[in-house]
Amino acid sequence: MRAAPLRPHPDRLLPIDPGVRGLARRLYEEVAAAPILSPHGHVDAALLADDRPFPDPATLLITPDHYVLRLLHAVGVPLDALGRGPSPADPEEVWRAFCTHWDVFLGTPVRFWFETSLSEVFGVTEQPCAENADELYAHIDAQLQADAFRPRALFDRFRIEVLATTDDPAEDLEAHARLREDPTFRGRVLPTFRADRYMDPSVDGWASSLAALSEAAGVDAGSYAGLREALRRRREAFRAAGGTATDTGVVDAGSEPLNDADAERIHAAGLRGEVGAADAAAYRRNLLYRLAEMSAEDGLVMQLHPGVIRNHHRPTRERYGPDSGHDLPSVASFTGPLTPILRDFGVHETFRLVLFTVDETAFSREIGPLAGFYPSVYAGAPWWFLDTPDAITRFRRAVTDSAGFVKTSGFIDDTRAFCSIPARHDMSRRLDAGYLASLVAEHRLDEEHAFALARRLVDEIPRATFRL
Amino acid sequence: MRAAPLRPHPDRLLPIDPGVRGLARRLYEEVAAAPILSPHGHVDAALLADDRPFPDPATLLITPDHYVLRLLHAVGVPLDALGRGPSPADPEEVWRAFCTHWDVFLGTPVRFWFETSLSEVFGVTEQPCAENADELYAHIDAQLQADAFRPRALFDRFRIEVLATTDDPAEDLEAHARLREDPTFRGRVLPTFRADRYMDPSVDGWASSLAALSEAAGVDAGSYAGLREALRRRREAFRAAGGTATDTGVVDAGSEPLNDADAERIHAAGLRGEVGAADAAAYRRNLLYRLAEMSAEDGLVMQLHPGVIRNHHRPTRERYGPDSGHDLPSVASFTGPLTPILRDFGVHETFRLVLFTVDETAFSREIGPLAGFYPSVYAGAPWWFLDTPDAITRFRRAVTDSAGFVKTSGFIDDTRAFCSIPARHDMSRRLDAGYLASLVAEHRLDEEHAFALARRLVDEIPRATFRL
Amino acid sequence: MRAAPLRPHPDRLLPIDPGVRGLARRLYEEVAAAPILSPHGHVDAALLADDRPFPDPATLLITPDHYVLRLLHAVGVPLDALGRGPSPADPEEVWRAFCTHWDVFLGTPVRFWFETSLSEVFGVTEQPCAENADELYAHIDAQLQADAFRPRALFDRFRIEVLATTDDPAEDLEAHARLREDPTFRGRVLPTFRADRYMDPSVDGWASSLAALSEAAGVDAGSYAGLREALRRRREAFRAAGGTATDTGVVDAGSEPLNDADAERIHAAGLRGEVGAADAAAYRRNLLYRLAEMSAEDGLVMQLHPGVIRNHHRPTRERYGPDSGHDLPSVASFTGPLTPILRDFGVHETFRLVLFTVDETAFSREIGPLAGFYPSVYAGAPWWFLDTPDAITRFRRAVTDSAGFVKTSGFIDDTRAFCSIPARHDMSRRLDAGYLASLVAEHRLDEEHAFALARRLVDEIPRATFRL
Repeated sequence: MRAAPLRPHPDRLLPIDPGVRGLARRLYEEVAAAPILSPHGHVDAALLADDRPFPDPATLLITPDHYVLRLLHAVGVPLDALGRGPSPADPEEVWRAFCTHWDVFLGTPVRFWFETSLSEVFGVTEQPCAENADELYAHIDAQLQADAFRPRALFDRFRIEVLATTDDPAEDLEAHARLREDPTFRGRVLPTFRADRYMDPSVDGWASSLAALSEAAGVDAGSYAGLREALRRRREAFRAAGGTATDTGVVDAGSEPLNDADAERIHAAGLRGEVGAADAAAYRRNLLYRLAEMSAEDGLVMQLHPGVIRNHHRPTRERYGPDSGHDLPSVASFTGPLTPILRDFGVHETFRLVLFTVDETAFSREIGPLAGFYPSVYAGAPWWFLDTPDAITRFRRAVTDSAGFVKTSGFIDDTRAFCSIPARHDMSRRLDAGYLASLVAEHRLDEEHAFALARRLVDEIPRATFRL
Repeated sequence: MRAAPLRPHPDRLLPIDPGVRGLARRLYEEVAAAPILSPHGHVDAALLADDRPFPDPATLLITPDHYVLRLLHAVGVPLDALGRGPSPADPEEVWRAFCTHWDVFLGTPVRFWFETSLSEVFGVTEQPCAENADELYAHIDAQLQADAFRPRALFDRFRIEVLATTDDPAEDLEAHARLREDPTFRGRVLPTFRADRYMDPSVDGWASSLAALSEAAGVDAGSYAGLREALRRRREAFRAAGGTATDTGVVDAGSEPLNDADAERIHAAGLRGEVGAADAAAYRRNLLYRLAEMSAEDGLVMQLHPGVIRNHHRPTRERYGPDSGHDLPSVASFTGPLTPILRDFGVHETFRLVLFTVDETAFSREIGPLAGFYPSVYAGAPWWFLDTPDAITRFRRAVTDSAGFVKTSGFIDDTRAFCSIPARHDMSRRLDAGYLASLVAEHRLDEEHAFALARRLVDEIPRATFRL
Repeated sequence: MRAAPLRPHPDRLLPIDPGVRGLARRLYEEVAAAPILSPHGHVDAALLADDRPFPDPATLLITPDHYVLRLLHAVGVPLDALGRGPSPADPEEVWRAFCTHWDVFLGTPVRFWFETSLSEVFGVTEQPCAENADELYAHIDAQLQADAFRPRALFDRFRIEVLATTDDPAEDLEAHARLREDPTFRGRVLPTFRADRYMDPSVDGWASSLAALSEAAGVDAGSYAGLREALRRRREAFRAAGGTATDTGVVDAGSEPLNDADAERIHAAGLRGEVGAADAAAYRRNLLYRLAEMSAEDGLVMQLHPGVIRNHHRPTRERYGPDSGHDLPSVASFTGPLTPILRDFGVHETFRLVLFTVDETAFSREIGPLAGFYPSVYAGAPWWFLDTPDAITRFRRAVTDSAGFVKTSGFIDDTRAFCSIPARHDMSRRLDAGYLASLVAEHRLDEEHAFALARRLVDEIPRATFRL
């Protein structure tokens, strides 16, 4: 069997009506080559600082990508066979498993991302299949040895201007420092402060996380007051390292503040391993409030994405660790639980809050309406399960009504898969072009504004939202 | 810089496909000039009774319109600068702030409404901008002095046949009486009975509201029995004044009845300022049930829109009062909480209940299915945050499946912005024409029925739903 | 008045754009005549075993169809007039009521199903109306006397290959046996094990249900251990009778297991009529877990559709019995409540779980993500209130993103209305053809894959999902 050709169509994802497609194509062309601003993602700064060749196609493209893992797992491929088991897997076998099940991705955004990056980054011209798996592996593997495929070369080739990483407050940001001090590297790689590990005093490892943070901050986080001071100092260090934002993922967006005495009491109980569920939740919600308070003070943009159930399948978590494909969405709620933060900082000049959801019912019911009143609130781009052609379109059609364009965040790729970055931004640019073109076709927007908005959505809007 | 032209396209909001658009245009033309039935809104009857010239463009078009206020506030314009502060603002400054930020409204229905009304009511031919703000102000202001721009003249020009206002039961409906008795005024301006103020015995001002109601009704509302009698008498007065409907906005749709002794006990506690949250909720839910019971008796159509969080930002509420742009949607629930009302009145011949939501998940899950079984229940038009081109389309595509057309309410504009009434009805007519045309194009409806439905949706259906 | 012609268009439900429609038509033609696999429905096996002529048009098409009843009831037709009252109705009168109100169904899927089956099954050429009601009745009634319109003849004419019924565990499956043993009947009519009656020890009739089950299973279900054993034995009998699946409808998807002692205690309390609400819920949730456990053992595919509020209007339930049009959707929740089942059986090789919902917010938030990770979980086709052209399209556009095609179930018709089966499958095939064609037009799928998927969706995918 001859493998099917891989030829991403130049008009892919653009609207079907020929007239609208023509305008959409022109709008897309206006921004197709614009630099990439990636203000939220999970690439490791050391990748760029070290600039070592990527090891092999599977380790680069398959094993770390939970979007791929989950769908292969869903059709019965064990995670061991994808390189996530306790013992290492042969990367050629991992790649073969992926190619053999390539049809599983039909109709999904994963297939779109892979088609674009296999074609445009690696010059692949055939759809993967069992028969050509080894050949494709060899083709990509050979390129990965070349200097042109090292991380920094790809960073330049991808036209990435800003890349935000995600980092624990206890991290020393050494790789960021190396990049900043390296005159041969011209990109901006910014740390993002993510303090999730310190939020819940009832989880295992909280006390040891505090110890590491104390060490990094040079202040004892053994008390609640100490933790706040340590977080403040590390935020300052992140800002000094170029950071402009924080990120927080919590079970819910509850943000009721506690008085200091109660917070200290729960903190101490947490250190003794004796904190109950209600106190732990109260502590976490208070800390969310305190992070907002700190953002209002230091101007770091607060990103918030509540409502993800982490590690739903306990046996998989125990065997394969986190980020193995079974984080799942839950019902989103913002308007109620964020009341304390918005009451106190919602119109604060410095405070800024970008809201992300994996429950799209919140688009028109909560996120759009909040961003359409509070100057501090921005509607975060559709994210994770919703970073798909159809959901992105639904986002625009639900949020623009009540928040317009300037209160949306601009695209974020949120990816660990370095080579998928251009494909993901490209998808977003195509879909926004299509949406703008359809507004013009419905006479809801004139062409001149559509072009201006297309440009702003990839440049001015993310720069302003994330204070880049 | 030359301002961009303002030229609303004759085919705006119609479907993109040329064939469908052709049919949609014919369907739209069939109803474009039909009289306006506005069975739910917030225009003040005194406006028409007094028929004084509107004071100035800002006071007419900007300051009272919370759709405008919220989006300008969201990009940092303080409400003081929009005329909502404790001290009066210069209307020319308010207008300038609006024009300067005109691009904020790109892609939103606010822009659609303004484009249509600026163009069609005031003959404006340029998009507002900082440069032409003063010129536009002068242009509109000059017209407002002319007799042709007085409220009654516009009422006629807008072809309004019926306009329902929203009124507290304690109001004397004096302006309504003046209009009814004035042989030179041919429109119907009907009061709508809205008893929200009496529902919750735990809110400040409840006791003084009761006192005002007692005065208006000529019966002592100091007891629960007295309150019910006072409400009944005022409903009778509203009916005598031409009213055909009531309106109720509550936090939730709970409707469990109480026995009289419990209700009297809570009522008395409320007067003493000693009612707790649980009792207050029970009282409110009982009163919702009693309002349904009264509707079954007197035939006033019951409109219900639960699930709005009022005055989310307390500091804004304290400084600028209610309706200042920060009412926000919450999760809708109808099927469960309305069980008692529907059990007892759901198939009652006189009872009628129109359900509105700001949470569109209820369209296909609750409102359509309820309207598709209970003869008394009607699916209210998409409202407030959902009165937008995309959400209206989603409403039809979600509700028609399970409720058809005749169990939907017909359009309601719900507006305080008098000059936006024709633009709002026009938007709805265009979108229904487009929806019907698309059903014809998909061979789900024949053309003859599409024309019949287009006409019924602006005439027979709202007349029947609201008993006009 | 001349009745309007009834001529279902060959391109009905296909996309509007002419280019996309051309491809969609070819995709549809590829599968239009494919045999029907109906793995989930409510036709009575005795209908086919007995093969008696259908009594009359109303008893065949109107009285048993709750989709029809509810909409006619919603416009004021009493259920008595539709044959559902305590005393029998004249079928000609029932049919007349239906024809007179035919316009109520404009835009609904009920009208689509009826147009197709009236035209294709009965050769009707006019839209029903008051004027032709008697004539249509006579026309259909005459055909029903002919051998070609007996159930088995229609079964063959409809090209049904597999038809699953829904059966209580206590049923003897005698009609299934007759069909299986009849060499002149070549279809497969499979029982589906539905144990809803035994789940809730607090409902009236639970004890007598247990007695009937004990009798059928030959084991005493008077204890919890006995009930489990009885269920196991009956599952075995269903499997022996060709069954491949179970079905469960519960208020919620809670699935926390109990230890045996607690379950026995609640079981005993249930027999004494002394079980409280919390214990009843715990018992039900445990039993859901146990049904999953049995499915993991015996390989019967577990279908689950929680979240339907049964018999919302108590007076209607009391007078007209169940399935009289007022079952209503509630909020769906899967990810949280199914945690225990998925923890223990989610990656089990034998276990399979097909999830159905009447709350479409679960498509992208829960069902797609679960089916996109757990090998055991499949996204059930849009069902009941969501078995409509628009909701089916929304299903594909929400679920494909995170679950692709192979983790969806294939269409299920879920109908009691035997003659609507081909129309319902036809609707699904048209819509899937349209969806696939639109993916091709957006260059998200190539044509070859679209044709392959169209075929798999009506054949390999339902066969594999339901282990047919």
